[in-house]
Amino acid sequence: MKKNTPSSTTTTCPPLQFDTSTWFAPELTKLSEHLNDRMVEMMRFYPESDYKTLRTMISKRNALHIDNIVITAGRTAAFYAIAEAFAGKKGVILVPSYQHYELATKRYGWQLTYLPEDIETQEIQLEGQEFCWICSPNNPTGRLRSRAELLELIGRYPSVYFVIDQSYATFTTQPTLTLSDVKGHPNIIFVSSFTQTYGLPGLRIGYVTADKKIIKEIQKVVDPWSVSTMAVEVAKYILIHPAQFTLPIRKWQRNALELETKLRQIDGLEVMPSDAPFFLVQIHCATAAELIKYLLEEHNIALYDATNLRGIKGEMVRITSRDATDNAKLLEAITAFCESR
Amino acid sequence: MKKNTPSSTTTTCPPLQFDTSTWFAPELTKLSEHLNDRMVEMMRFYPESDYKTLRTMISKRNALHIDNIVITAGRTAAFYAIAEAFAGKKGVILVPSYQHYELATKRYGWQLTYLPEDIETQEIQLEGQEFCWICSPNNPTGRLRSRAELLELIGRYPSVYFVIDQSYATFTTQPTLTLSDVKGHPNIIFVSSFTQTYGLPGLRIGYVTADKKIIKEIQKVVDPWSVSTMAVEVAKYILIHPAQFTLPIRKWQRNALELETKLRQIDGLEVMPSDAPFFLVQIHCATAAELIKYLLEEHNIALYDATNLRGIKGEMVRITSRDATDNAKLLEAITAFCESR
Repeated sequence: MKKNTPSSTTTTCPPLQFDTSTWFAPELTKLSEHLNDRMVEMMRFYPESDYKTLRTMISKRNALHIDNIVITAGRTAAFYAIAEAFAGKKGVILVPSYQHYELATKRYGWQLTYLPEDIETQEIQLEGQEFCWICSPNNPTGRLRSRAELLELIGRYPSVYFVIDQSYATFTTQPTLTLSDVKGHPNIIFVSSFTQTYGLPGLRIGYVTADKKIIKEIQKVVDPWSVSTMAVEVAKYILIHPAQFTLPIRKWQRNALELETKLRQIDGLEVMPSDAPFFLVQIHCATAAELIKYLLEEHNIALYDATNLRGIKGEMVRITSRDATDNAKLLEAITAFCESR
Repeated sequence: MKKNTPSSTTTTCPPLQFDTSTWFAPELTKLSEHLNDRMVEMMRFYPESDYKTLRTMISKRNALHIDNIVITAGRTAAFYAIAEAFAGKKGVILVPSYQHYELATKRYGWQLTYLPEDIETQEIQLEGQEFCWICSPNNPTGRLRSRAELLELIGRYPSVYFVIDQSYATFTTQPTLTLSDVKGHPNIIFVSSFTQTYGLPGLRIGYVTADKKIIKEIQKVVDPWSVSTMAVEVAKYILIHPAQFTLPIRKWQRNALELETKLRQIDGLEVMPSDAPFFLVQIHCATAAELIKYLLEEHNIALYDATNLRGIKGEMVRITSRDATDNAKLLEAITAFCESR
């Protein structure tokens, strides 16, 4: 029997997650109590048909109509529903970004054009295009497109639909597009997530916000009864208790900046600029896979390997900042790795 | 302030559910304790990629391979995935049955033929057909097709795929098809549910069992990341602790038979034959909607209105038996309604 050895610790503790692009420290004590009291009914009862109460709550908070909202089994399912509802369209994807934009649209026969994600917003040309998929701040680069620039682009191409991934909209203090913008802009299709914003990837619930006609088309291809009663309950709880879930974004950004600054002092790494608490790091002293293997096996730390994403050149990892204590562990581990090279 | 009036009781208590086709009394104490201990991690962590552990558990229990199984966000999502994977096919649906067979296949351009569900299995003719959708015991009729008859049909048409809805396979003491039958029959596509069998409709998890080639096609159209971590955890718990979830089917059937016998003594009703603990009742003394409205408003009892299902003639409700005490309440309420007519 091995006890208290590093390897048994590694097996039993989940790794320190620098690899997910989600908020790392949600405070879930009150929510857990709320759910524990409702455990049996969350299993025993179907979710509400068409999720009317939840859609009403989301629409009211954004001064929209319930028919502007459709609920999906996670934001990824939302992208597949959009891709299916508008099968075969011509679309532009800025890369690197979330790979399911590409996988979803390819499944449904879209004709895709890829633009480099570091293009300035005012230089994006969409003549002859029908859709443009944009994530801001973008995952994995962390690049923010300003609200003003996005509104200019969306206004410049009124016949192009813009699929705007709002998953990281709370990961910045700068003004972003907001769901109520669909009122003046029938060509915006927002996708929102509970996973990223609230650090709750286990739930599988997301939603699309758009003009009623668009939502009607998407609703036609969303699988009925695919969101769990618990996910709906959590979503409603979050909307009723927003203060419990406010992201301490300034503090998180300070920690991220400090981590970036210190990583820049390590030879063999190149930290890419980012507006979000996650960022890309080019690895010059090894392959990304080697670094990731070392960190996981020797330090029980997880990073995300971005090397094979479309639009990425060279060996690249994505790091999502945690708190100062965890960040110090990561710095120490990466320093040890690079010095051994 | 109204207090303790019938109407406020009606508002706060959920109705006595005779309207769902699910097991009505799962014992969830131990499962709830198990989940309460894991509440935060079920929200904080993604489900396992491709649900490998769960698929391994299901496949091992049925002497199958992991590649014979695909997990979906509920059985309904499974039907849509099958319909999409084989878009545009020719299929036969026996009616009345679960309406999503028809809705799913129509969404994906199938050419449908409807056969009356009361046809004898040996008389089903499938020349020129590519798929046949069968539920046994069937919802809403409760009709069971014997294992021997189904195997004869499936063997008679080796080039036709049979989508077999296993949701109610535990609702009978007679031998039914079992998941391991896919080994000898590459033309069977089983859909299994946790909702019906275990009375857990809140979870949204189901799965398809079939030949590897079929599963590969279905996997291509299943939305990634659509099943919640909690649903996967519950499914694994059920597979590890089957004794906690064994249906007391003989007792349930006795209660159902007694209810049917007593309902047959009421003038104005016609109880249809059924092999399951749910059954159809033709209403002669009123419309189904009138009976349902009366029961809900005056007795807080819910029945399912089957009148508008394809293949149903006349005013029809489906009743799922509960225990003797609840059944007595239903009998009293229906008797009062029919006598007032």
